[in-house]
Amino acid sequence: MNNKRGFASDNNSGVHPEILKAILEANEGHTVGYGDDIYTDRAKAKLHEHFGNDIDIYFVFTGTAANVLGLNAATRSWNSVICAETSHINEDECGAPEKFNGFKLLTVETPNGKLTIDLIQKHMKGFDFEHHSQPKIISITQSTEMGTVYTINEIKTLADFAHQNKMYLHMDGARIANAALALDSGFKEFTKDAGVDILSFGGTKNGMMYGEAILFLNKELGQDFKYIRKQGMQLASKMRFISAQFERYLSDNLWHENAKHSNKMAQLLAQQIKDIPQIKITQKVEANGVFAIVPPEIIPELKQEYFFYDWDEARSEVRWMTSFDTKEEDIIKFVELIKEKLS
Amino acid sequence: MNNKRGFASDNNSGVHPEILKAILEANEGHTVGYGDDIYTDRAKAKLHEHFGNDIDIYFVFTGTAANVLGLNAATRSWNSVICAETSHINEDECGAPEKFNGFKLLTVETPNGKLTIDLIQKHMKGFDFEHHSQPKIISITQSTEMGTVYTINEIKTLADFAHQNKMYLHMDGARIANAALALDSGFKEFTKDAGVDILSFGGTKNGMMYGEAILFLNKELGQDFKYIRKQGMQLASKMRFISAQFERYLSDNLWHENAKHSNKMAQLLAQQIKDIPQIKITQKVEANGVFAIVPPEIIPELKQEYFFYDWDEARSEVRWMTSFDTKEEDIIKFVELIKEKLS
Amino acid sequence: MNNKRGFASDNNSGVHPEILKAILEANEGHTVGYGDDIYTDRAKAKLHEHFGNDIDIYFVFTGTAANVLGLNAATRSWNSVICAETSHINEDECGAPEKFNGFKLLTVETPNGKLTIDLIQKHMKGFDFEHHSQPKIISITQSTEMGTVYTINEIKTLADFAHQNKMYLHMDGARIANAALALDSGFKEFTKDAGVDILSFGGTKNGMMYGEAILFLNKELGQDFKYIRKQGMQLASKMRFISAQFERYLSDNLWHENAKHSNKMAQLLAQQIKDIPQIKITQKVEANGVFAIVPPEIIPELKQEYFFYDWDEARSEVRWMTSFDTKEEDIIKFVELIKEKLS
Amino acid sequence: MNNKRGFASDNNSGVHPEILKAILEANEGHTVGYGDDIYTDRAKAKLHEHFGNDIDIYFVFTGTAANVLGLNAATRSWNSVICAETSHINEDECGAPEKFNGFKLLTVETPNGKLTIDLIQKHMKGFDFEHHSQPKIISITQSTEMGTVYTINEIKTLADFAHQNKMYLHMDGARIANAALALDSGFKEFTKDAGVDILSFGGTKNGMMYGEAILFLNKELGQDFKYIRKQGMQLASKMRFISAQFERYLSDNLWHENAKHSNKMAQLLAQQIKDIPQIKITQKVEANGVFAIVPPEIIPELKQEYFFYDWDEARSEVRWMTSFDTKEEDIIKFVELIKEKLS
Repeated sequence: MNNKRGFASDNNSGVHPEILKAILEANEGHTVGYGDDIYTDRAKAKLHEHFGNDIDIYFVFTGTAANVLGLNAATRSWNSVICAETSHINEDECGAPEKFNGFKLLTVETPNGKLTIDLIQKHMKGFDFEHHSQPKIISITQSTEMGTVYTINEIKTLADFAHQNKMYLHMDGARIANAALALDSGFKEFTKDAGVDILSFGGTKNGMMYGEAILFLNKELGQDFKYIRKQGMQLASKMRFISAQFERYLSDNLWHENAKHSNKMAQLLAQQIKDIPQIKITQKVEANGVFAIVPPEIIPELKQEYFFYDWDEARSEVRWMTSFDTKEEDIIKFVELIKEKLS
Repeated sequence: MNNKRGFASDNNSGVHPEILKAILEANEGHTVGYGDDIYTDRAKAKLHEHFGNDIDIYFVFTGTAANVLGLNAATRSWNSVICAETSHINEDECGAPEKFNGFKLLTVETPNGKLTIDLIQKHMKGFDFEHHSQPKIISITQSTEMGTVYTINEIKTLADFAHQNKMYLHMDGARIANAALALDSGFKEFTKDAGVDILSFGGTKNGMMYGEAILFLNKELGQDFKYIRKQGMQLASKMRFISAQFERYLSDNLWHENAKHSNKMAQLLAQQIKDIPQIKITQKVEANGVFAIVPPEIIPELKQEYFFYDWDEARSEVRWMTSFDTKEEDIIKFVELIKEKLS
Repeated sequence: MNNKRGFASDNNSGVHPEILKAILEANEGHTVGYGDDIYTDRAKAKLHEHFGNDIDIYFVFTGTAANVLGLNAATRSWNSVICAETSHINEDECGAPEKFNGFKLLTVETPNGKLTIDLIQKHMKGFDFEHHSQPKIISITQSTEMGTVYTINEIKTLADFAHQNKMYLHMDGARIANAALALDSGFKEFTKDAGVDILSFGGTKNGMMYGEAILFLNKELGQDFKYIRKQGMQLASKMRFISAQFERYLSDNLWHENAKHSNKMAQLLAQQIKDIPQIKITQKVEANGVFAIVPPEIIPELKQEYFFYDWDEARSEVRWMTSFDTKEEDIIKFVELIKEKLS
Repeated sequence: MNNKRGFASDNNSGVHPEILKAILEANEGHTVGYGDDIYTDRAKAKLHEHFGNDIDIYFVFTGTAANVLGLNAATRSWNSVICAETSHINEDECGAPEKFNGFKLLTVETPNGKLTIDLIQKHMKGFDFEHHSQPKIISITQSTEMGTVYTINEIKTLADFAHQNKMYLHMDGARIANAALALDSGFKEFTKDAGVDILSFGGTKNGMMYGEAILFLNKELGQDFKYIRKQGMQLASKMRFISAQFERYLSDNLWHENAKHSNKMAQLLAQQIKDIPQIKITQKVEANGVFAIVPPEIIPELKQEYFFYDWDEARSEVRWMTSFDTKEEDIIKFVELIKEKLS
C-alpha cells in the first residue's frame, strides 16, 4: 500500500478537479433514481453529439462490466468471441465473460495486441456444426493493452469481415480517448463510421472517478439491455453522479486535453529512454503506454520509488503507463533514476 | 424525469455534504488501485470498530451486488435460499441471484416482511434428496422492505435455527442504520452477536453516493471472495473513493444522525396521518417507511407534486419513504395536500 | 434397494418388450452418429403424423433436460417462468431450470396441480420494469403431478392469455399419453391446436427405456436448438437407439395401449378404496395416479411390501402411481393388504 | 444420412451383442429408479475391482456430461482448466464446460494432443491475483484426440506437477480402453496409481449403447456429486439399463477384446498405407485412430464410399477411426480404393 507516484496504471491517478466539481454540482435536491434524471439526459446528449443520434446508451460502474454486459447483449451461451490473448476480457477479468455469458473466448496470439484477419482465421470454422461454439463477435481493444492503436482502415477491415460472416465487432474502449488522440480523429470516425457494433466507452482511466458507458452503435442490439444491466448488478441507484461525470468529461474538450497530455508524457518517456543502450522499447508508443525490456537487476530498485507492473517477467519486459496527471518532472526524475541504476 | 421532492425512495436523495467532502479529500496524488490503499484500510478499521476484528470485509458498488455475491460465497448452484416474497433479492433484482448463483429462491408470504420459523418450515424439506435443491441460507432484510424491524431475539432465533440445520443466516442491510436506530442498538448486537453469517451493509440509502460493504461475520465464508468480487464485475479500480465514504459515514456518528432523522420523519408522517379516517396505515412504522391504504382517486393527484410508489395497487396501498434529507416542512406540506385532496 | 413391485413411480417399471425389440433391430451396421440417420428420420415422421409438419423436433435423454432446454430456447436469463409450486420443474429438478437458464421461477399454489388465469394473475406484473424479471412463459404439466388433467378448453384459455401478454405456453408432457387417454383425444388437439408453443413429449414413464422429445410446436422457437442441446450435454452419439424407441412407441398404438392400461389400473385402485372409510382420495383420478390420505400408522407396514412415496407427510397423504405393467392382481392384493392393516 | 461403413468415429458403430443381451436381461420387474438398484450395485462393484474401493462412482448419459460435471465438482467459476487446444472439452462440446461451470479454459497448442509441463507453463501464472482466473485443473485425454497415448510416467509427472501447485489432474477417458491396450496395462496403473483425480470413463465408443461413468479417484471430490448430476440433467430414471451395460462391459474381458481389436485394425490400416508415397501418416498410431495427409483430390471420392472426417482441411489431413466392429476386409478394401484412386 502506498501513495508514491508511478506508472502502474492510469487508474492509479485521482480524479480530475473538473470532474469532482461536476459531481458536487449534481448534488442538489431529490432526483429520481436509476437514470431517469436530467443529468443522465444531458450526458447522453453529449455522447450523441460525438456518436450521432442513432445509438443506444447505458451507463455502468466498471470497464469489466461494460465489456461483459455489452457482449451479453449480442450473444447466446453457445457463441464464441474471438479476441487477442492479451485482451482485458481474456486476461484481466477473472473469467467474468465466461461466467456471466456462458460463452467461449477464442484467443489469438498477437505481436502487438492487434487482431488481423489473418490471425483470427484459425478460429473461423465450425459454423453450423453443433459440436462447435459458434463464433459471433470479434472483440478488439482501442488503444490496445500494449499501447498500440488500430488505424481506421484496420478497424473497417475487421468490421467488414465480421459482418460478412454474420458476426459483430466489439471494441473495448477503456482507453479510447488516447486512441482518438493518436489517430487525431473524433470518436465516431473509428467506431460507428468504421463499423463497430458495440463499444465500451471508458473514462475512469482518463480522469473520471467511476462509471463506464456501453454504446450500442448498432442500435438494435441494445433493445433489452436495461434488463441485462440490472441483472448484471450494474444499475446505479444514484446514477446522476455517473452521468454528471460523463457530461463534464465530454464538454470543453476535457477528455481531449487529458488524453493529449497522457499521450504526450508517454512520448516523452519513450524519447528519453530510446537511446539508453540497455533498454529496448518493445512496442510502438502510440497511446499512453511504454513497453520496454529492462535489465532485470534494476527493476526491484526502480519499484522501490515508482509503481509499475511487469508485463512479461520471463523476458524482463515492463509496462509503464502515463496518465492525465503525470508531470514532466515525473518522467525526468524517473529516467534519471533509471540511468543512475544502470550506471 | 423530475427534480421535485418526494417519498419515492431513500436513494432519490443526494449525498450528505460530509460524504462529498471526504471524497474530495481522498483525491490526492496516486494510489494503488483496487483497494490496496490507506483509505480502504481506514474504512475497514472503522467497520472493525463496529463489528469486531474477526470478520472479513469487501466493498462493492451496489446493494444488489452485495446480496448476490455475498450469497454466492456460501452456496453452490444446487442450493436454495429461503426469503420473504417481498424481499429485495426476490422482487427487485431482476433475477440476479438466480442468474449469477444458479440457485433457487424459496419464497415465503409474510404479513410484514419478516420471516419466522413457522413461516419457513414449509421449505425445510428434501434434505439429502438429490431431486431437491438443498436449502442452505435463510435471508432476511433489516429493516425490512415493509418498514418493519426484526428484534434481536427474532434474529437470534432464526440464526440458531439455521445453524442447527447446517444453514447460514444472511442479512440484507440496505437500511441497517434505520434498524439500529429503531432497536436503539449498535450494529454488532443484532448481527454478529445474534448469529448473522453474511451481511450486506448499505450506506447509499442513508447519505452515501455509491458503494456497499459485504461483511463476512462468519469469517471463513469470505476466504475466496476476492475472486468472486472481481468475476462479479464489482472490483472498483479507484476504490479509495468508496472507502473514503465509508470511513466518513462511520465517523462522528454521521450514519446515526442520518438514520435518526430519517426514522423521525417517518414517525412524524405516521402521526400526522394516523387520524385521517380515509387513510389506513398498514404496517408498524419502525424504520423510515410508511405503508398506507389511500383512496385511489387522490393518488395520481398526490403524485403530481410528490414522487412515491404504489406498493399494492390492487388494494390502493402506497409506500412513503423518508430520508436523511427529508425536511419537517416536506411532511407538513405533504399531509396538508393529502387533507386538501380528501376534502 | 429392491425389486419388489409397487406404486412408487411409473419409471420404476421396466421397458415394454416391443420397445426392446425395436432397439435390437436398430443395431445393424454403422450409422452416422448424432441423429443424421434413418431411424431418427422415421421417428420424426411418426411425430409429424401426430402433430403436423409445421413443428421442429429434437431428442434428448431425460425429462428434466427436455423441460430445461426447451425453456431455454424461448427465454433470456432476465425472464421468468410461471408454474405450479408442485410442478416437476420447481420441485424435482434440483434447480436445473435456474442453473442452466439463469431465470426465475414464479410459483403458484394450486389445489390440484393446475394453473388458472386467476391463480397466475399475482405474477403478471412488473412488465417493462427493469428491476423485475420479465414473465415470458407459463408452464403447465399434462397430466399434472397430482394426477389431474387439463381440459382442452383450459389449455386454450391459458395459451390465449399467454399470447395476449407476449408470452409462451410450455407443457411438460412427461405423462402426456395418460392425459390423451383421459381426454379421449389425439395429442394435437390439446397441444398444437390449443396453442401450446413448446412441448416436452415423454415416453420413459410409459414403457420406453430412455429418451424424451422436445417439440417446438411454435416452430421458430427451435431454430437454434441444436446448439442448445449440444451445450446442454444432451446430444446422443448413438441417437438411433432413442429414435428407434420413439418410432415403435408411436406405431400400432403402443403408446395408447400402455397408457390406457395404466389409467385403467388407477381407476381400479380408486374404485377399490373409495368406500374404505379410513381412506380419503384427495384428487380426481384422471390419469394414472391416486392421491389419498391414509391412516399414518399403516403406511410403514404397506411400504414393507409395496413401494410408494409420501406426498404430504404432514397430512398423511400418499401418492400411488400405476404403470403400463401394473397387473390387476397387484391392485387387488394391495387393497387387500390395506384392508387387512386397517382392520 | 447413410448406413455405409466407414472410419468416421468409433461411435458410428452399433452396440456389441453381449451388451444388448445384458440390457435385455435387466428388464425384469420393477426396480427403484435413479440408481438405487442391484444392477447399479454390481456395476459399481466391477469398477471397484478395476480401480480399488476408495473411489466414488456415478453414471451419466454422455461423455460431454462426464467431462463437464466431473470438472464442476472440483472447481468454482473463478477457476480455469488447462487443456490441449485439440481436446474434446475445448473443441467438441459447444462451450458446455464454460456454460455449465462458468470457468475459463486455457488452451495449449500441442504437436500430438499431449500436454507436457513445458507446454502448460505459460498458463501457470496469476496465482493469488484476483484479476486472473485461478488455474485449478489440468485436463488430459487418454488416448488423445489424435490417437496418441500418454505413458504412465508422463501422467505421473503431470499429476505430481498439478498436486504441487494445489491443482487436480482430470482425465477424459472416452477411449480409455484403447489406451489401456496400447500401454498393455490395467486401468488403475495409469489413472489412480498415477495420480489422476477425476476420470471420465467411457464405454460408448467401445461397444456400449449409451452411458458414461465419472470416477472420483480422489474420493472426497465426489461428495456432493449427486446434486451436481441431477442439476446437470444427467440422472437416469431407469438407471439399471446403463448399469447393466457397464457390468457386462467390464466382465469377461469384453472391454479388452473390443479395444484390442479396434487398436489392431488401426495398426493394420497404418501398415497398409505407410508405404504409399502420396500418403503421410502424421501421428504415431498408438490407439484406434490413424491421422494422415492425403492428396486432396481423392478425398471426396473416398468419402463417397466410406465415412470419415477431415482433421485439418488446410493441409489435407484426415482422421480415420477404427472400432470394435471394424473388419479386416473393411481395411483391405479401403486401402485398395485408396490405391486405385491414387493411380
